[in-house]
Amino acid sequence: MSVVITNPPRVPGATLEAYSGIGVATAHEAQGRTGLLASTMRPIYAGAKAIGTAVTVSLPPCDNWMVHVAAEQCKPGDILVVSPTSPSDAGYFGELLASSLISRGVVGLVIEAGCRDVAELTKMGFPVWSRAVSAQGTVKETLGSVNVPLVCAGQLIQPGDLILADDDGVVVIPRLRADAVLVLSRQREVKEEGVRARLQTGELGLDIYGMREALAKKGLVYRDAGPG
Amino acid sequence: MSVVITNPPRVPGATLEAYSGIGVATAHEAQGRTGLLASTMRPIYAGAKAIGTAVTVSLPPCDNWMVHVAAEQCKPGDILVVSPTSPSDAGYFGELLASSLISRGVVGLVIEAGCRDVAELTKMGFPVWSRAVSAQGTVKETLGSVNVPLVCAGQLIQPGDLILADDDGVVVIPRLRADAVLVLSRQREVKEEGVRARLQTGELGLDIYGMREALAKKGLVYRDAGPG
Amino acid sequence: MSVVITNPPRVPGATLEAYSGIGVATAHEAQGRTGLLASTMRPIYAGAKAIGTAVTVSLPPCDNWMVHVAAEQCKPGDILVVSPTSPSDAGYFGELLASSLISRGVVGLVIEAGCRDVAELTKMGFPVWSRAVSAQGTVKETLGSVNVPLVCAGQLIQPGDLILADDDGVVVIPRLRADAVLVLSRQREVKEEGVRARLQTGELGLDIYGMREALAKKGLVYRDAGPG
Amino acid sequence: MSVVITNPPRVPGATLEAYSGIGVATAHEAQGRTGLLASTMRPIYAGAKAIGTAVTVSLPPCDNWMVHVAAEQCKPGDILVVSPTSPSDAGYFGELLASSLISRGVVGLVIEAGCRDVAELTKMGFPVWSRAVSAQGTVKETLGSVNVPLVCAGQLIQPGDLILADDDGVVVIPRLRADAVLVLSRQREVKEEGVRARLQTGELGLDIYGMREALAKKGLVYRDAGPG
Amino acid sequence: MSVVITNPPRVPGATLEAYSGIGVATAHEAQGRTGLLASTMRPIYAGAKAIGTAVTVSLPPCDNWMVHVAAEQCKPGDILVVSPTSPSDAGYFGELLASSLISRGVVGLVIEAGCRDVAELTKMGFPVWSRAVSAQGTVKETLGSVNVPLVCAGQLIQPGDLILADDDGVVVIPRLRADAVLVLSRQREVKEEGVRARLQTGELGLDIYGMREALAKKGLVYRDAGPG
Amino acid sequence: MSVVITNPPRVPGATLEAYSGIGVATAHEAQGRTGLLASTMRPIYAGAKAIGTAVTVSLPPCDNWMVHVAAEQCKPGDILVVSPTSPSDAGYFGELLASSLISRGVVGLVIEAGCRDVAELTKMGFPVWSRAVSAQGTVKETLGSVNVPLVCAGQLIQPGDLILADDDGVVVIPRLRADAVLVLSRQREVKEEGVRARLQTGELGLDIYGMREALAKKGLVYRDAGPG
Repeated sequence: MSVVITNPPRVPGATLEAYSGIGVATAHEAQGRTGLLASTMRPIYAGAKAIGTAVTVSLPPCDNWMVHVAAEQCKPGDILVVSPTSPSDAGYFGELLASSLISRGVVGLVIEAGCRDVAELTKMGFPVWSRAVSAQGTVKETLGSVNVPLVCAGQLIQPGDLILADDDGVVVIPRLRADAVLVLSRQREVKEEGVRARLQTGELGLDIYGMREALAKKGLVYRDAGPG
Repeated sequence: MSVVITNPPRVPGATLEAYSGIGVATAHEAQGRTGLLASTMRPIYAGAKAIGTAVTVSLPPCDNWMVHVAAEQCKPGDILVVSPTSPSDAGYFGELLASSLISRGVVGLVIEAGCRDVAELTKMGFPVWSRAVSAQGTVKETLGSVNVPLVCAGQLIQPGDLILADDDGVVVIPRLRADAVLVLSRQREVKEEGVRARLQTGELGLDIYGMREALAKKGLVYRDAGPG
Repeated sequence: MSVVITNPPRVPGATLEAYSGIGVATAHEAQGRTGLLASTMRPIYAGAKAIGTAVTVSLPPCDNWMVHVAAEQCKPGDILVVSPTSPSDAGYFGELLASSLISRGVVGLVIEAGCRDVAELTKMGFPVWSRAVSAQGTVKETLGSVNVPLVCAGQLIQPGDLILADDDGVVVIPRLRADAVLVLSRQREVKEEGVRARLQTGELGLDIYGMREALAKKGLVYRDAGPG
Repeated sequence: MSVVITNPPRVPGATLEAYSGIGVATAHEAQGRTGLLASTMRPIYAGAKAIGTAVTVSLPPCDNWMVHVAAEQCKPGDILVVSPTSPSDAGYFGELLASSLISRGVVGLVIEAGCRDVAELTKMGFPVWSRAVSAQGTVKETLGSVNVPLVCAGQLIQPGDLILADDDGVVVIPRLRADAVLVLSRQREVKEEGVRARLQTGELGLDIYGMREALAKKGLVYRDAGPG
Repeated sequence: MSVVITNPPRVPGATLEAYSGIGVATAHEAQGRTGLLASTMRPIYAGAKAIGTAVTVSLPPCDNWMVHVAAEQCKPGDILVVSPTSPSDAGYFGELLASSLISRGVVGLVIEAGCRDVAELTKMGFPVWSRAVSAQGTVKETLGSVNVPLVCAGQLIQPGDLILADDDGVVVIPRLRADAVLVLSRQREVKEEGVRARLQTGELGLDIYGMREALAKKGLVYRDAGPG
Repeated sequence: MSVVITNPPRVPGATLEAYSGIGVATAHEAQGRTGLLASTMRPIYAGAKAIGTAVTVSLPPCDNWMVHVAAEQCKPGDILVVSPTSPSDAGYFGELLASSLISRGVVGLVIEAGCRDVAELTKMGFPVWSRAVSAQGTVKETLGSVNVPLVCAGQLIQPGDLILADDDGVVVIPRLRADAVLVLSRQREVKEEGVRARLQTGELGLDIYGMREALAKKGLVYRDAGPG
């Protein structure tokens, strides 16, 4: 059955704002190395970055009708998350749809398929993470669903989940864990700041993390190369 | 048999000029969603754009001898379209060949293989669409053909056909359809302009395109998420 | 057995400096079209360039412990060359490790796997050639080896070998051949300069390289297209 | 957190038996074209077939420790469903583990990674669907989880769900829908039997399904080729 | 425009019969190493073999409506050749359609996409060459064309062309060249028979083909390994 | 420089015979999980198996001239190991060359490229491990080398090394380690036999390998699913 779920609960805006400055790699580590979408999902331009709440779209391959349906369900701060029901690299999304989404306050698109109008989207500053760039058109014939649980690029995404995306890829943080992961992300950042300062002065990770004993215990051997 | 066809009829320069401003996605749609090369064909730098007439080169894998032969057949406004007879990602093309082509007025290269000297080509502003970047050298041992019909990245290309290429990929427009597709592309642009303006004000595609009835007829159901 | 070889002989710094200005494509050609790593190895930003001596790291898949071990073995002018013992696209390397390497004078990383913190690495100007970008974390559980002979992206790399990397990819030049290949690379550049000048004036490669006779002998046929 | 959920509810054995004779393609269609794992999941031998209840295993890449943990949780009629937390083609599973699983009544393995001992597994008649065959060993260092919800090859699988696998691939049928999908699958089979008989006598799908009018309405044109 | 071309001229049945015993590799060599479809096109079972005349089907991705339309155009000795207008691995074809085609005398299917019911097709002895096996269903919504020129797996195929397919892949032989290529294929077979007999007695290709002089001229050097 | 090294030292025949019965997975484990070629290297028929000494062939892409040169260097018990200098899937090898190799006592082929005449090779029982099957022909124009160190499918192979290949893939065992790895392989087999017997009776790996304590220490938690 094709269904549109309206008004799913979302991670609140204050939490989204608080995530500003947290990178994908940090959040992924902070939530126990989970939630990262496949590395085939790449931004269409360098420096792309987005934080938002997922509006999910499950649609038939090579058919983008449901993206129009989903646009109506979008609110400021949302990120559209789109996955076809079978693999496809066609271009489901371009600048017209981006114009529509921008006017509704949507901050980005994550699509396990292709997008087009890359030059225009770049100019508009509308970030997209996709597995392909393709001008290949799609039809508007068959229904799908909006705001249902979705597997996108190997991860389960629920409507309202927090999506964080940057040059390193895309990570999903389940809605009810968003605050906890935020705390852990910040802790991680603070810790890394200290480590970074020490590394920059030439101190070694071997010493900062106290790895030497464990390495020796595992049997690591050092041997001089001798004369070349 | 290896053959070089000289002076094939080409899309006239006036038509090429008239295509300025038409994007790959638009032209592909305008000619009925046909002619798009595989999405594995990517520009070597962002913002690359070219409009020209195809000089086709069929050559043996890992052998770029025929590119030199093809250079002589090029005229101002041409785009070289190269495809090896079996798959290859070697680097058939670099800045020396680009220098030669530029001096003859060639405006770009489309190659279903690899190219190299990407930094130099970028500086020279010579756009290339390829499926790989590779410094791997090629030999000059075996003949191929120039200006014969060619399958490149999944599309049939005839010498003299119009090639349009930008950040979204590469589309071929058959020579005798170039004027008709131009008209349809412009109509499409005019129509899209009107739609864009409405979308930017927040009007929905659902309403602009009048989709609501069709969706309901197909059985689309709306359901409120209820309390989270 | 897991072993760290200390102080392997390296290509001397003077040779590294002398390579400045030589591109990957040129050096690859100069050493007889050998040594080029697979074209899947791409720079994380356009314009990346590095010349250095290889510190090799063989490590278990999805485990970056040995990168910390390797950092201690690095000297100014080195390039870290990392390959997991089975294929992996996880993110073994980020800006913290880059901070550490930079403080030791390391000039780049070549990794047949993934890296992360791409935005930060770009800002820091630390060039990385990898086959993937991924935020996926790795563990620190199992030993590997440092400065042992390594197959990376299809090429055998010995510690101390010269690594040259730019937008076209990565080439390895065996330590004891570095001076000879330098001479050959320069000869090639001088020769190409002459050819380039002639090509830019519109002279054809067919004539500069004297190819016409050989093409005719192989049986190349020219035929006019006739009326369209 | 790493957790092993014991005794999840499972599709009952009677239902499993009732599915005997239903193919993957039929069940996938019957449940509305959902639930099919990616086509990269291939059986290790032709004619492989399995029906069972999922015991899910989420494990770190290149580490098969949790498969041993999962073995203890298996009951007769189960199928082990394994997915690493980041992509991997190593060989997590061989004939020793198969011996263990067979002794517990397990009827097959679905793994989004590699398996080995293919010749022995074939002789034993233990069917495996994997995305790779590889002898590459794995370690036993890091925990994962058993019987948690799992994304495997693009589909969400819950412990206890019904897994159907044959030469066409693997489909998951959610536990609570297993009976309903069975009814629909049988209806489909009955209907197909009638159609098959008519097709075998030369009657056309065009007529059996009454497609001619719809095709004409869409504008399909017939034109004779004329003289060759 | 969607069009069905009826009764295209075909390679005559006598020629098809005469090709019996000619393999794909031989025919591909005999016509100058042209016409081979991409090596991604694999038979669904070992030992598959087919010789027939192409009925071509261009259809939208994930939509198999036109296969039903094409069935009506098939005559005994035909092979259906199917390619979607954008890349797809869904399962467009199964045993029901095979039943229909068999009843019309069709001898095989070549599809640049997926097929399903592999176990049944194997039992029926209906050979299929495809780039994927997938149970993923397709829709019946959008028109395509039958018996138009088609690019399939990188080769241009015209309706009525001769298609030869076996364990080595698929080759297309243009209709008007079928007789000439047959002669060349047989000559090749005769020649190879003689060579085979000599090779089996231990004579070397180096001597049979008289390669030694050419190798020496190119500068091949022999050097004894010396003591190990 | 192109060179043929004659009479490299080889693993002695007695050692080859002693390896009979040892599988690829076992030998790979026995030598510390090293030496396994990429899992893209697949046998052309199920049940293929070969043990032999490497004659290595480095050749230009899409050029099989050096295979003929290499044939002369082969002795009974050898396996030809072929790798082009840049990636290629063309068909370098077919039944004629197999006839030649068989007459010289060669027991198999490992090629990081394509082979053809798969049906005939299967009938002849000549096993081939390749990364593709392709009828695509190659030329005989450019030299390469025989019996030089070679990187094939990611592993360094020296002439005379032991090659073991079966359904699980291909492993190389350095010549001077062949006896030591044999001993370790047998020890491993003996140990596995004991484990297998216990597993078959239903005993768990958890207990046989004594894993429970380590798992608990790492923090593995068991939790009952509760009512469904």
